[in-house]
Amino acid sequence: MTKKLILLRHGQSEWNEKNLFTGWYDVRLTEKGQSEAVRAGQLLAEADLLPDVVFTSLLSRAIMTANRALESADRLWIPVHRSWRLNERHYGALQGKDKAQTLAEFGEEQFMLWRRSFDTPPPALADDSEFSQVNDPRYADMDGEMPRTECLKDVIARLVPYWEGEILPQLNSGKTVLVTAHGNSLRALVKHLEGISDEDIAQLNIPTGMPLVYELDDNGKPTGPGRYLDPEAAAAGAAAVASQGK
Amino acid sequence: MTKKLILLRHGQSEWNEKNLFTGWYDVRLTEKGQSEAVRAGQLLAEADLLPDVVFTSLLSRAIMTANRALESADRLWIPVHRSWRLNERHYGALQGKDKAQTLAEFGEEQFMLWRRSFDTPPPALADDSEFSQVNDPRYADMDGEMPRTECLKDVIARLVPYWEGEILPQLNSGKTVLVTAHGNSLRALVKHLEGISDEDIAQLNIPTGMPLVYELDDNGKPTGPGRYLDPEAAAAGAAAVASQGK
Repeated sequence: MTKKLILLRHGQSEWNEKNLFTGWYDVRLTEKGQSEAVRAGQLLAEADLLPDVVFTSLLSRAIMTANRALESADRLWIPVHRSWRLNERHYGALQGKDKAQTLAEFGEEQFMLWRRSFDTPPPALADDSEFSQVNDPRYADMDGEMPRTECLKDVIARLVPYWEGEILPQLNSGKTVLVTAHGNSLRALVKHLEGISDEDIAQLNIPTGMPLVYELDDNGKPTGPGRYLDPEAAAAGAAAVASQGK
Repeated sequence: MTKKLILLRHGQSEWNEKNLFTGWYDVRLTEKGQSEAVRAGQLLAEADLLPDVVFTSLLSRAIMTANRALESADRLWIPVHRSWRLNERHYGALQGKDKAQTLAEFGEEQFMLWRRSFDTPPPALADDSEFSQVNDPRYADMDGEMPRTECLKDVIARLVPYWEGEILPQLNSGKTVLVTAHGNSLRALVKHLEGISDEDIAQLNIPTGMPLVYELDDNGKPTGPGRYLDPEAAAAGAAAVASQGK
């Protein structure tokens, strides 16, 4: 039996629009981001790819995206699971900083290292920063696991156990699964799924609001590369992500 | 420790607006209903009554209400549980019928009996009716439990086990609980909570989009009557519900 997995990066957020590093800082979708989410739900309905269960991060922009997509796909009633393990990469001391300004200040090499290095995290965010989440009640159950910065390798380390323990079992039981998350948590998942190397993952950019569909075999391995439901728009979206800060 | 329970009837739906009996038929919120839900979330935030967990029915109007209220209260990230046991009363063969026309056709006595009788359900809905839910995938797990009509007594019978098995344990663990549901499923719950008699429950009308707050003691019993966060608007809303069909 083929298992269907749909990955969906949240639509444009208030800080995507302002070109700020967001990470775990909780911002809303813009009107454009909400429209992207509605459109994503329409694409799912048109492709008859109706999720039976949805997973989201704990961040509002991913949850708003899931809510609006499921509303337009007429699947509001499906069970919902949320986890910090699907959160965006924690951007450390970069959270709240302007991307273009950071690029100008630190130069392209350092900028791209922070954005796309596999194993070099940005400097840690101070707990007393206005952009810190250490006192946010949504993370009260995390105990000592709250990150202060993360590289992509760290994201994979906290995401894969959730993939294997919570998401894959739903796929294995025959459910079509929607995962609504973030640029870097989805890059981490795609790297794990497709076995992309630590070097090549730097080139992968996931556009906002575009359903990316995988079919998995009985071992939970993709039967082929991920397929965007609207390939043309997805290519344009990925190029826009790649050029951020420029 | 005082436990806090918030009941919220969905905002105006497309069929509330058209004055049709809805029951298990799945309709959306109107723009007005969406605004009511946003306002309900603002009332919760202003009263510092922030839910830790939300329960909804499987019907879109209740889920849309929960989503918008949690969005405006900035609590999108809380865990979500859904169950058909919180659904509106199944209105049987009345589903899809105009309330005023039904009143004119059958007379006030029969009309009020169907709307407010404790133990007389309307005639059953035929499985081949366009208003039937027998083939709706959201109820695929119900096996033989799908109702074809319900009176309030039936609603209590299917709701109380869920209250005791799923909702009360969350309250007992110290969580503030939001239940977003329907006129009759919430009347059933209020009857159970307040020990209202089979006769007196006929007079209870719950307005749309108004948070109704209970504090419960260690035995899960209310320490006093439910309190609307906006009592004046709630009284006007309840009067409007009482006069439906007129």
